[in-house]
Amino acid sequence: MSLIKVAVSGCMGRMGIAVCETVMKAADMKLSAVADSKKDAGEAFGLKVADKITRDNSCGGVDVMVDFTHPSCVYENAAGALRRDISCIIGTTGLTCEQREELKRLTLERGLFTLVAPNFAIGAVLMMKFSAIASKFMGRAEIIEMHHDKKADAPSGTALLTAEMMAASYAGVKRLDEKVSLEGARGGESGGVNIHSVRLPGFLAHQQVIFGDAGQVLTIRHDSMSRDSFMPGVALAIRESVKRKGFYFGLETIMDMGF
Amino acid sequence: MSLIKVAVSGCMGRMGIAVCETVMKAADMKLSAVADSKKDAGEAFGLKVADKITRDNSCGGVDVMVDFTHPSCVYENAAGALRRDISCIIGTTGLTCEQREELKRLTLERGLFTLVAPNFAIGAVLMMKFSAIASKFMGRAEIIEMHHDKKADAPSGTALLTAEMMAASYAGVKRLDEKVSLEGARGGESGGVNIHSVRLPGFLAHQQVIFGDAGQVLTIRHDSMSRDSFMPGVALAIRESVKRKGFYFGLETIMDMGF
Amino acid sequence: MSLIKVAVSGCMGRMGIAVCETVMKAADMKLSAVADSKKDAGEAFGLKVADKITRDNSCGGVDVMVDFTHPSCVYENAAGALRRDISCIIGTTGLTCEQREELKRLTLERGLFTLVAPNFAIGAVLMMKFSAIASKFMGRAEIIEMHHDKKADAPSGTALLTAEMMAASYAGVKRLDEKVSLEGARGGESGGVNIHSVRLPGFLAHQQVIFGDAGQVLTIRHDSMSRDSFMPGVALAIRESVKRKGFYFGLETIMDMGF
Amino acid sequence: MSLIKVAVSGCMGRMGIAVCETVMKAADMKLSAVADSKKDAGEAFGLKVADKITRDNSCGGVDVMVDFTHPSCVYENAAGALRRDISCIIGTTGLTCEQREELKRLTLERGLFTLVAPNFAIGAVLMMKFSAIASKFMGRAEIIEMHHDKKADAPSGTALLTAEMMAASYAGVKRLDEKVSLEGARGGESGGVNIHSVRLPGFLAHQQVIFGDAGQVLTIRHDSMSRDSFMPGVALAIRESVKRKGFYFGLETIMDMGF
Repeated sequence: MSLIKVAVSGCMGRMGIAVCETVMKAADMKLSAVADSKKDAGEAFGLKVADKITRDNSCGGVDVMVDFTHPSCVYENAAGALRRDISCIIGTTGLTCEQREELKRLTLERGLFTLVAPNFAIGAVLMMKFSAIASKFMGRAEIIEMHHDKKADAPSGTALLTAEMMAASYAGVKRLDEKVSLEGARGGESGGVNIHSVRLPGFLAHQQVIFGDAGQVLTIRHDSMSRDSFMPGVALAIRESVKRKGFYFGLETIMDMGF
Repeated sequence: MSLIKVAVSGCMGRMGIAVCETVMKAADMKLSAVADSKKDAGEAFGLKVADKITRDNSCGGVDVMVDFTHPSCVYENAAGALRRDISCIIGTTGLTCEQREELKRLTLERGLFTLVAPNFAIGAVLMMKFSAIASKFMGRAEIIEMHHDKKADAPSGTALLTAEMMAASYAGVKRLDEKVSLEGARGGESGGVNIHSVRLPGFLAHQQVIFGDAGQVLTIRHDSMSRDSFMPGVALAIRESVKRKGFYFGLETIMDMGF
Repeated sequence: MSLIKVAVSGCMGRMGIAVCETVMKAADMKLSAVADSKKDAGEAFGLKVADKITRDNSCGGVDVMVDFTHPSCVYENAAGALRRDISCIIGTTGLTCEQREELKRLTLERGLFTLVAPNFAIGAVLMMKFSAIASKFMGRAEIIEMHHDKKADAPSGTALLTAEMMAASYAGVKRLDEKVSLEGARGGESGGVNIHSVRLPGFLAHQQVIFGDAGQVLTIRHDSMSRDSFMPGVALAIRESVKRKGFYFGLETIMDMGF
Repeated sequence: MSLIKVAVSGCMGRMGIAVCETVMKAADMKLSAVADSKKDAGEAFGLKVADKITRDNSCGGVDVMVDFTHPSCVYENAAGALRRDISCIIGTTGLTCEQREELKRLTLERGLFTLVAPNFAIGAVLMMKFSAIASKFMGRAEIIEMHHDKKADAPSGTALLTAEMMAASYAGVKRLDEKVSLEGARGGESGGVNIHSVRLPGFLAHQQVIFGDAGQVLTIRHDSMSRDSFMPGVALAIRESVKRKGFYFGLETIMDMGF
């Protein structure tokens, strides 16, 4: 079996370093090129750090580029890679709709693979997908998300996205005659789903989606314990990049759930 | 919209009574016939209690029969109903393979619907299905099931069935060098999945399936709080019985999860 | 050992019936007298049902009366019992301050025992007591209570009482710069403790108190699964009534926690 | 208010570094001396690293020494400190009974303070203490501990210690007629308490003690999310060291729980 040749763009960032380590540890992958705007960081990973992933800084060709850089350069990185027939896995946020459409066009035109994903934590992605399914069959649902007390905003983006993904199939009806003696006790509401945000020191990033129906409760919970949580998802995307063609949005779209 | 005409076999049993109540409360269903071996229980539900569901004891035809009776008579009940062009929903256990095959043949021959399901708790069925999917993507898993202290056996049938459903896609590898200083602490093992059974007063029937991978934990938990938990599943099956044809095993096979 | 002779006032109510059953099952207790305003309910428990617990309807003396009646008659019941040298365990709500003071006076004057308790679920009482202790040592806390969707009010009385019991020792400081994009997401606040109320079908009565500090989380959770949850607490009170003298408020005041 | 002058023995170890940081951040403490066998690590924390805490390497006296070193030198470190009138907080394991007795004698003779504690995580200590109390009042209990999959042994020391602390007041009776179809499913048993050990990637160090009684469940859970979890306990001990005299074993013995 030939190795999957991987380039990492943003290789000196926190996520980029982790991706490089993941690739180097994987028996079926090879780290072939790295790039970062901070080139002065020296020869990381035994490779010359370039500005961008180009033919020149790649030792022997690249199958797929993983990009964890910055909204300001992600489009240019990805379009450049696709034009050189390199597939793309993009974890950087900030692509505009037009940019996404152009990347899609380039991907399809050249028969390549591109994945744009806001979240690579497989467990979190499964939690959201399962919640969307369960909301079709269970009566009502509420979300509790728990984060460390330094988190700036509430609720979390994941909680809001989960509620959005549930909305299409959710039929829970809000009770109108609730008597709330302490303002806010029933949480916030998005698409009929109440959301509660807990902020305490000690927590990292956790969420549970609770479904209730006659005589039963179903709870789907995800605990993010460290940044490592993104790595199995990145590895899965790299492996799929040489098996599939097409433009994908969201890690769940390349996970074959077997239905 | 015409009402779905439902017959209940085993109408004087605990489950049968609950099914009759569910049907009578549902706006789109009509309780059309009831049967029980204990006929002396009187005219329950405003209907004459017969031995079996027959043309005679049905007030105006029957679309589907729900059977919660006994292993000794379930086959005869179901075959008799199918021969009279009545679809079947079977919650009774104890059908042999041959009996299932014969019911399948009758169902397909006559263009009817039959569902045989060991568990009608939608939440539990979702927990098992989601666990089977998650085991494909997450590193390792263990099951903790918690029941009241009068439960005769351990582990629960649901825990063993869950492990079986996970086995096909589960790749977790058992560590061989564990040092266990207290025998049994690591639980029992089925198909590579460790199962832990907690028995305490206060509990009813609960199970959590815990998946771990790099930096993250995904937990799927179901709490059965009362016998009511079976009713949404029975109602769903009754509604599907007039939309689908064919022989189905397991509630999940008639739940359209939208993949 | 002589049996503890117990009278039950309100013996035909839901709680009263359960108390009678608990007493009859206990090897060290004897059900000696019962009373209820609904006397026409017949001779329950093999005893004549009277209006009130009196000398006449007691078969051989009474040590302690358990009262689960109604705010309108509880004071009269208790004062009457104390005047006949019967100790009192009062689960009925609605005593005024003056009435409590008078019952206290009567109890002390006659060297008897009286317990007035709003909650007999030992587990819930321990949860509240432990939470009060933990709030002295852990940085911050939030409360999540979960109840069935028919519960009329939010938050629950237990949640508010827990926050009140924590207030004395709680030093958690509220962050002032939180950005809340969905109103109510951070819950209600009582004494610096955020309270979140979840209302879903399937739940009965549940509460968790979550404490966070550097690198750790401590959670104390109580699940009420049925009305039986009050019985071990009532039995404990009956046994303490013949060991102690004095007037007590709250089940925790007669639980020797051994500090 | 004068600052508490703290010396840290083992200042180059993982725990020692964290203690130094905690002391430097605390407004009421001053890092006055540091020692480590690896002296070549340079001038850490702006102080000269010595072999041991001595008069010479202390900048202006020391009130209390915190020791996280090694079983081979902890006794010598502590005895030496006490003889120079420095109180001791010892997190290092491995003291023999005779050594403990001698440290106690020295501490009392000189009117100093010594704490020997196997665990400084306040939340874990509260979990164990609360479990010991709850086992007096609740019917039965089981322990589930969850750790990462690299942990060498099962069950954890904390689980065994918790069971030991519960044993004195625990009255739960083991059922003798359990039918276990999968060996090990009911866990290991210590002092009548069943212990279940879960080992999965993603977990750090977690434990829940579950108590069941009629109609209710009480759960006390501790999650250790990072090594920081020990620091609030060390800070508490340092503050108590200048308020108390005497020899203490276990962090809980210097926590005033207010009973």
